[in-house]
Amino acid sequence: MGTERGTLVIIGGAEDRQGDCVVLREFVRLAGGMKAHIAVMTAATGMPKEVGDDYIHVFERLGAESVEVVDSRRREDSLREDSLRAIEHATGIFFTGGDQSRIVDFIKGTPLDQVIHERYEQGAVIGGTSAGAAMMPDQMIVGGASVSNPSIDAVSMGPGMGFLPGIVVDQHFAQRGRLGRLLAALVLQPAMLGLGIDEDTAIIVNGDEFQVVGQGAVTIVDESTATHNNLNGLLKDESIALCDVKLHILPHGYRFNLKTHLPLV
Amino acid sequence: MGTERGTLVIIGGAEDRQGDCVVLREFVRLAGGMKAHIAVMTAATGMPKEVGDDYIHVFERLGAESVEVVDSRRREDSLREDSLRAIEHATGIFFTGGDQSRIVDFIKGTPLDQVIHERYEQGAVIGGTSAGAAMMPDQMIVGGASVSNPSIDAVSMGPGMGFLPGIVVDQHFAQRGRLGRLLAALVLQPAMLGLGIDEDTAIIVNGDEFQVVGQGAVTIVDESTATHNNLNGLLKDESIALCDVKLHILPHGYRFNLKTHLPLV
Repeated sequence: MGTERGTLVIIGGAEDRQGDCVVLREFVRLAGGMKAHIAVMTAATGMPKEVGDDYIHVFERLGAESVEVVDSRRREDSLREDSLRAIEHATGIFFTGGDQSRIVDFIKGTPLDQVIHERYEQGAVIGGTSAGAAMMPDQMIVGGASVSNPSIDAVSMGPGMGFLPGIVVDQHFAQRGRLGRLLAALVLQPAMLGLGIDEDTAIIVNGDEFQVVGQGAVTIVDESTATHNNLNGLLKDESIALCDVKLHILPHGYRFNLKTHLPLV
Repeated sequence: MGTERGTLVIIGGAEDRQGDCVVLREFVRLAGGMKAHIAVMTAATGMPKEVGDDYIHVFERLGAESVEVVDSRRREDSLREDSLRAIEHATGIFFTGGDQSRIVDFIKGTPLDQVIHERYEQGAVIGGTSAGAAMMPDQMIVGGASVSNPSIDAVSMGPGMGFLPGIVVDQHFAQRGRLGRLLAALVLQPAMLGLGIDEDTAIIVNGDEFQVVGQGAVTIVDESTATHNNLNGLLKDESIALCDVKLHILPHGYRFNLKTHLPLV
């Protein structure tokens, strides 16, 4: 991660859109505040009109200069000139919730994907909530039951959009009891850092550091310290063993260094 | 914990009672196998007849020599001569699920409590599932929402039955997503070890060591390594911060030393 990149705002879902909007307020501020040009990416959702309108409403209420929905309902939509122009113009690109596989299926590897990554390299803010958070890493959690034992069949993984390599994100973390599935993802993707982001909570990633914003907390599961697992010979429905994993719970205001794996108190 | 004591079988709830009964089988074996005299303590449940009959059925099926229900529906019941005699005679004392507060309210500090602890000191096996697991420590989790942020209001604590000091037990752990509530309990009871026991899974405690038995896993949250928390000045609904907690996930067959806090692989 170099300093030339933009900022990521990775939200654990169900962020406040009616009240103080602590998390979205930060996204708009980082995207330029009253001068922000925001593109709302609705690829993840099956209800792009309703979801898109909801975000137009809140971003306009917070004072963004322009808000535009970029709707990808099929992969072909990611070739459209008007979509590419909206992204080129955007200072903030926001991915809504829904199904993270739709983001990858409809956008990854298309010209739209390329221009989004270019804008990110140039300093634009990339935000995403729920499915829009899950898709941030190189390898993402595609699905899997909440509140499950940590076992291989608790999670399915697939390529993500690659904004933040070396981590796995799970969202709605405390609210859906997803420790088991995040641990399973980490065992399948060793040397990764797991970030379980609660609802109405975000991490703001800048270079090698992130800061926590919002109502809940971020649970950091650092598997790099693990001294043992039982993956060798493990069958799909058997419980994973994992020794000496490190855990941090960081609420609003706390920071964490992604390179050193150290919280900054 | 000295070697003169008996054995504890602490079950995370919903243990198999129809099929192989891996967990209950172990309880009966430890209690003397075909020579076991088992007392089923139904204090926790509002349905003592149904729950009691269910355990009579399974313990008899597994071949225990005698099974008797000790039913405490009020505190006065813990003075009854027949109950005291049943315990004096028992090689295995099994606490059913229900509400852990009922166990403490109806039994703690009574003659029945005293004779149960005496039998434990003499080598009897004390088993408990769900509420019967929660009550094992000195300080127990009385209640609190599952799948919640780790905050002070996520959990309420109270005195337990004191069979295993220095720990906090939470049950139905993965199945109800209770990491947040267990972390909150640990912050309220510092220097404790948190044991999150999954359903159909047990720890068998003997002296300073326990072994895991069953379908799921035991999540060990070791807060003694923590370098920071934000408890000072924290309000009730605010998210806890906690840095450098150690986590182990131990499935069937793994052992753990309660004194050294080390898993035995």
